[in-house]
Amino acid sequence: MGFLKAKGVVYKPVDEVDLGPDSDEFYIRANVKAPRMAGLLVKVFAWFLESPIFGGILLYILKRNNLIHKLVSFAELQESPLFVPLHPHQGIVEKEVKCVDPDMSPPEKVEEAVDCIQSPEDLPKSLQLSFRCWTILDYARAYSSGETTPTMVADRFIANVRESSSRDLQMSFFINLYEDDILKQATESTLRYKRGEPISVLDGVPIAIKDEIDCLPYPTTGGTKWMHKVRQCKNDACCVNRLRSCGAIIVGKTNMHELGAGISGINPHYGAVRNPYNRSKITGGSSSGSAAVVAAGLCPVALGVDGGGSVRLPAALCGVVGFKPTFARVPHDGVLPINYTIGMVGILAATVEDALIAYAAISGDLSSNHSGSAVPKIGLPLLKSANYLSWDIKMARYGKWFDDCSDNIKACCSSAVAKLSDKYGWKTVEVTIPDIEAMRLSHYLTIGSECSGSIAGHLEKLNKAELGWDVRVGLAVYGSFHSHEYLNAQKIRNRQMQFHNKIFSMADVIVTPTVGVTAYGIEDDALKTGELDYINGAALVRYQIAGNFLGLPAVTIPVGFDKSGLPIGLQFIGKPWSESLLIHIASAVQALFMSGNKKPEVYYDMLANAKD
Amino acid sequence: MGFLKAKGVVYKPVDEVDLGPDSDEFYIRANVKAPRMAGLLVKVFAWFLESPIFGGILLYILKRNNLIHKLVSFAELQESPLFVPLHPHQGIVEKEVKCVDPDMSPPEKVEEAVDCIQSPEDLPKSLQLSFRCWTILDYARAYSSGETTPTMVADRFIANVRESSSRDLQMSFFINLYEDDILKQATESTLRYKRGEPISVLDGVPIAIKDEIDCLPYPTTGGTKWMHKVRQCKNDACCVNRLRSCGAIIVGKTNMHELGAGISGINPHYGAVRNPYNRSKITGGSSSGSAAVVAAGLCPVALGVDGGGSVRLPAALCGVVGFKPTFARVPHDGVLPINYTIGMVGILAATVEDALIAYAAISGDLSSNHSGSAVPKIGLPLLKSANYLSWDIKMARYGKWFDDCSDNIKACCSSAVAKLSDKYGWKTVEVTIPDIEAMRLSHYLTIGSECSGSIAGHLEKLNKAELGWDVRVGLAVYGSFHSHEYLNAQKIRNRQMQFHNKIFSMADVIVTPTVGVTAYGIEDDALKTGELDYINGAALVRYQIAGNFLGLPAVTIPVGFDKSGLPIGLQFIGKPWSESLLIHIASAVQALFMSGNKKPEVYYDMLANAKD
Repeated sequence: MGFLKAKGVVYKPVDEVDLGPDSDEFYIRANVKAPRMAGLLVKVFAWFLESPIFGGILLYILKRNNLIHKLVSFAELQESPLFVPLHPHQGIVEKEVKCVDPDMSPPEKVEEAVDCIQSPEDLPKSLQLSFRCWTILDYARAYSSGETTPTMVADRFIANVRESSSRDLQMSFFINLYEDDILKQATESTLRYKRGEPISVLDGVPIAIKDEIDCLPYPTTGGTKWMHKVRQCKNDACCVNRLRSCGAIIVGKTNMHELGAGISGINPHYGAVRNPYNRSKITGGSSSGSAAVVAAGLCPVALGVDGGGSVRLPAALCGVVGFKPTFARVPHDGVLPINYTIGMVGILAATVEDALIAYAAISGDLSSNHSGSAVPKIGLPLLKSANYLSWDIKMARYGKWFDDCSDNIKACCSSAVAKLSDKYGWKTVEVTIPDIEAMRLSHYLTIGSECSGSIAGHLEKLNKAELGWDVRVGLAVYGSFHSHEYLNAQKIRNRQMQFHNKIFSMADVIVTPTVGVTAYGIEDDALKTGELDYINGAALVRYQIAGNFLGLPAVTIPVGFDKSGLPIGLQFIGKPWSESLLIHIASAVQALFMSGNKKPEVYYDMLANAKD
Repeated sequence: MGFLKAKGVVYKPVDEVDLGPDSDEFYIRANVKAPRMAGLLVKVFAWFLESPIFGGILLYILKRNNLIHKLVSFAELQESPLFVPLHPHQGIVEKEVKCVDPDMSPPEKVEEAVDCIQSPEDLPKSLQLSFRCWTILDYARAYSSGETTPTMVADRFIANVRESSSRDLQMSFFINLYEDDILKQATESTLRYKRGEPISVLDGVPIAIKDEIDCLPYPTTGGTKWMHKVRQCKNDACCVNRLRSCGAIIVGKTNMHELGAGISGINPHYGAVRNPYNRSKITGGSSSGSAAVVAAGLCPVALGVDGGGSVRLPAALCGVVGFKPTFARVPHDGVLPINYTIGMVGILAATVEDALIAYAAISGDLSSNHSGSAVPKIGLPLLKSANYLSWDIKMARYGKWFDDCSDNIKACCSSAVAKLSDKYGWKTVEVTIPDIEAMRLSHYLTIGSECSGSIAGHLEKLNKAELGWDVRVGLAVYGSFHSHEYLNAQKIRNRQMQFHNKIFSMADVIVTPTVGVTAYGIEDDALKTGELDYINGAALVRYQIAGNFLGLPAVTIPVGFDKSGLPIGLQFIGKPWSESLLIHIASAVQALFMSGNKKPEVYYDMLANAKD
């Protein structure tokens, strides 16, 4: 019990903590004590970590230096553990919202969602744009009018992906993509349109799926070289099945950070996913390919899984919308079981409207997640009738945290918030959210323990050479946590949930930049070994954690670009089950900022010649 | 990651496991590899375990030899973790039951419960008994009729407890008991009766509280010498408050196994609680004093906390009724936070009717435990109108497990089940419940991790000499678990819940002996150091675990005595929220077996001279 002698923080009771702007709660900047490593260095580091004695000492030092010991492992807390971020729900309280039953069929839900959406032609003149991505409704109209067919789009899609994979581009968007399977789906969709019987507006629309989600006929690699060998994909995941039942063409399995155990999107087995806005930059991850294919125009929508910002973070870096619903809003069945209380299916989309349609298609968890409770209704926001001037939205903003990002991002996001106040009259409420760094570390400890525990049985039988070096380091740390540490992390989860509930009694949403840095460069030495860059990593996940650890819904919307032309996203974190309000807000933000959209360096104009 | 190489069981998918009587699932008898230790031996063992290097090796060997590694730590499971045994609930489906709202006041609930009860005078002639304990209704009648007063009862109570603590008896029932506080409550109650305004039938009834439950003006020691110094008792626990609001006299804090970390009831600081049926025997624990005071006639009801059988087990050993409701049925507020997902307030009572009244008074959890769900209604069984011949109860019985107990218990419990079939026509369904030993170990690992984690901060500052030696050993093991092991234990919890749900689709209840051995002797060498007896310990908890780990309701009823006159209990485990059915069953069992009741060696006839 020697460890008991180490020194931990004694946390104050929640009710004694001041959450106002002048609180004396200290903002701890992420205290990352680890240099960037790639190439030989990461190999040597992995060897050390995996050696029985050195490894133990090194892990102890790492956990101590990175404040895990102080803020989590040996902390003293009054709170009991909150193991699963499953929230009570009332009826829908937002305004201008249509309630639909969770057991309505996906095509019916999609129809209800479409009914909520303003058509692009109805946009006021000032918002007619020089560049905009094709939306789901654009596809549906082009198919219905006969301007193009799903088969023509599928052909173009396949050609475009081939080009993106060429030696010149090496975008590494997909892990697996079966051309025959795509063409078969497209033929069926084309026939449905010919018969005048498309299933929904998603019929024939290409949608890509992160390779962490089961999707026939593909194996589910999880970005690894081995997962699919030990775990067979036998069915579509529920969310995939729902998209398919709407007629969507599932166009392949997108590349991801190996095991979701990192967030750069540099995968040593399937290639580093490259950012469509600048090929030399990362996309972020772990839903790297899903963000990139949407940014590159290949699909209006892709699915990702968000375990530590893994949907919102690459969305922000790639300049698309990233939307993560409340924990348990979307069924998790058929997602790789590499964590249990953290990961959620999320949506990457070119526009808020497309995110809404995809959300309507996949949401509604009818499983046993909701112990003893009625399944919550799904609120679909009436975007076309919303008048944001009359909405009186209160945005909670924690200044020290908000500003803990690069100068470009700080300037861009601050001015975006100011513009929202200016144009819509929305108010900013200055708050303090305590212990954000403790939450980040607790989340890391939790996702690490759950991931490590869930794959331990497989790893045992595995040739370690099948793992990327960065992941080997990650797994060594993931596997180092004591049950005390896990339980303390869950107590911090409870504590943070209480803080956030208090914040949500003062404001409707929390506003933050989505990430602390824009997309950084892909270095050559990282391509084969993967890369450890915990400093940039901490900056990327800085604003993500409440969405996962507390299961809160969150959305990121592009609001500008940094000096080098890389996208910047603004994030809104909502109270549990408040997706409809978040989509409303995202739609209002999009309306203000979409005129600034820029076309990515790598972009495929899937419907360009539809009229040819 | 060396540990990953150890060998664990690969569990079959739940659906492939046969739960029928001819299943090839293997019944593993508890594989306890640890000799009984007390006195010097336990000290040496504790020193070894607490030493950094020897301790690590010893713990590894202990965990390996006791199959923790094989069945839990390194096991491979398909299931996701179930962290908290919180169950969905439908409306009440049992028959002959009265539904009451959980937010009804405790006295109103008590009135409803009394209305469900047959009065002793209505018992058929054959059941007029030579010996029976005084019930709550006996007290109420004696007070209302003026035969005696709460003050007279309190005086007698105090005198009796003094006698029980004398050098001759050394029963060690209480840790703290303030005579003034008892007399003050009694005076108030007496005045209420004088005014003809008793609050409920509980008015003036002495009720004792386990010293793990907050209860003013007492400190909450948890059976330790230090807990109350680091954690102040500021309020009554919710359950205590509810009893008090019914007029009950709270008569002190009962002795318990230190920290609830053992089940013998031998407390080196406050004395070994002695069994009223035989002073030289243990009471079991950890709610040792609560079981003993009820058996000794001092109180008709006492409260305990059941974390690993800690209510049912001493109830069985002391020949009283022990009743543990479903997880989250009774508010847990104000119970020492030494575990989170395992412990539940339970009731020790001389009769099923008294258990029902106390249950009505304390049940109904209005807190946030029920994520998003309506609070379940409380079903109070209409005992007076029940005709058990028409009930068609199906009792699941796992033969190999049922028979894994001492010959006396096997014979007594088997004949009790046969008698129930014979007299009431209830059916026995032979089943197999797989992996019971894995569940016991998972529960141990869970309660250990949670306890250790919750007191780590205190232990750090503690002089170890303030801990009993058996608890020092326990805490060394408790503190040795990895987050993988904790998570695997929760996966086994999920798996077992699925098995039990299947069993409950085949039968109404599971029937078992309550414990595997009757009360064993208190050895002199254990009095100062505490005692480690993992073999008897495993036999005592053998049938308890599902009640805690899966949060299922369970009840034990005395059905006979062994050759040396020590009580034997029969246990029924119910499906979630089926308390009303369980009380019905307990009442039916009581009706058959109460004529065999024997007066304990140490017994106080609290109302004997009421008519004087």
